[in-house]
Parts: sequence; C-alpha cells; structure tokens
Amino acid sequence: MLIQEMTRKASLDLLARTHLGRLACTQGPQPYIVPIYFVYDAHYIYSFSTVGQKIEWMRANPVVCVEADEVVTPTQWQSVVVLGRYQELPNTPEWHDAQLFAYKLLHQKAMWWEPGYARTIVNGVERPLVPVFYRILVEQITGHCASPEPGHAV
Amino acid sequence: MLIQEMTRKASLDLLARTHLGRLACTQGPQPYIVPIYFVYDAHYIYSFSTVGQKIEWMRANPVVCVEADEVVTPTQWQSVVVLGRYQELPNTPEWHDAQLFAYKLLHQKAMWWEPGYARTIVNGVERPLVPVFYRILVEQITGHCASPEPGHAV
Repeated sequence: MLIQEMTRKASLDLLARTHLGRLACTQGPQPYIVPIYFVYDAHYIYSFSTVGQKIEWMRANPVVCVEADEVVTPTQWQSVVVLGRYQELPNTPEWHDAQLFAYKLLHQKAMWWEPGYARTIVNGVERPLVPVFYRILVEQITGHCASPEPGHAV
Repeated sequence: MLIQEMTRKASLDLLARTHLGRLACTQGPQPYIVPIYFVYDAHYIYSFSTVGQKIEWMRANPVVCVEADEVVTPTQWQSVVVLGRYQELPNTPEWHDAQLFAYKLLHQKAMWWEPGYARTIVNGVERPLVPVFYRILVEQITGHCASPEPGHAV
C-alpha cells in the first residue's frame, strides 16, 4: 500500500463532491464524533443539526474537525481532514442572509430532511428537536490517498 | 424522521459487525479525526496504524472517541459513539500476548494490509511506516437510530 498526500485542490474537490462526513468537537480532553451531512461552498462547510451535546460543546469550544472520505477497500481510499472553526447561524436579523444561504444550499442537495419534522424519543418521552444551522470555516485542509501496490498488498 | 436511542446491546452489536469507523483524538482544544479499520472484541476496539500525528496525540492524551455507523439515507441510519481510552500494544515481552491477539484478530478480518509493506511519499521523499498496534477500552457506548416517518420525511 502506498500512501500519498493529496494536493489542496484535490482535497477541496473531495470535500465538494462528498456530503456525508464526520464532525469532531471536544469538551476538555474528551473528543466526540457525530456523522453529519454537509455542503461545502467557498471556504465554509454548511450543515444543520438539532440542539444537543454537539451544539453545546461547539458553542463552548468552536475549534472543530471534519473528516470526509471515499473508502473503496482498506488499501484504496482518499480521506481529507479539515481543521476549522464553528460558527452558528442563528435566526436573527444579523445572520438572516447567511442562514437563508445555508438553508437553500442544503435544501438543493439530496441530504435534506425537514428539521421541523424531526422528533426524538428518550426514555419513552417524546422531545421536540430544535434545528440549528451552522457553518465551519475551513482553516486548514489536508488529504491522503492510498493505493494498493501489486504484489505487496495482502 | 424519528430519532431513537439504541439499547446498549444493539449499540455493541453494531460495533461488532462494522469494521470501518472514525477515531477522534485531541491536542489541547483541537480535535482530529481519522478513519480506521477495527475489530471489536470483549470491551476493546483493536486496530493498528502507522506512527504519525494520531499516535503521538493519543500517547499524550489517551482520551478518545470512536464512531461507527450504517447510513442508508439521511433519514435512515444507525450511529454509535464510544468514549474510550487508548492503550498501545508495544512489541515488548509484557505486551506480547495482547499484541499477538490483536494481530490475529485483525488478520482474520478482511480489512488487513501488511503493515510492513506500507510506505508513504511526502514532499517527494519516501518514508518508511512503522506499524503500531493498539486497542481502545470501551468506557461508554451510546447509539442512535433514525427512521423516516411516512408523510413527514421530505
């Protein structure tokens, strides 16, 4: 197996064509990962979530990581890692345009579910889910790709 | 979309039948995610890697997170999150049995590539890769599953 660094352009291309990724945030020494659907557009990863541990942790520490990949086999894959900064897009006049942009962008893609319709049942009790739109400023992106080498891969 | 908590048994079952996951570790406030292949067995997630940023960060802070999922559509998925502790399995007499166990377990599964054959090219210079076996003690596991609701999903 040969592992090579991807160029910045190839890394951003992968980010632009994938929409399922994983987001990590932290509280103290503890990291936490959740899968997210996202759209990348001009330096930002746009997504939305329901209020919960992830949002609370990112409000407290906006330093996050997003990983996206295309894994074919254990010896053939591409993976990009973004180090970035969480920015919430609240429902206020100041952020209206940015939230609307995120809404439209996410709605255009096939990943959409209507946030208002989501509900959750915890310990038998139904709780409403409050949607939160956010974006992540891509401060650094790196990518690696692996390819099998004939005769070497097992 | 309806999101429900998974039982501990259902969460562990998902962990046992999936072998591709994402691992997050941290350095200060910064989380970092990498995809990993793993095998779950009796409270431990076994994997191996080449020495690099991930291993260095986990040696410094062994508090980690592993996420595994089965995503069918944006409204139909299962995801488990493990909070755990990194334990390296070095090539020493004390850890010989544990390392051998990890080697055999990982070798049995289809995710195997021979660590000694991996090599990497960074800035045009080839570097050897040193394999490191490790396991993650599962200290806490939670799972969530989503299902579409007819008439509500968009």
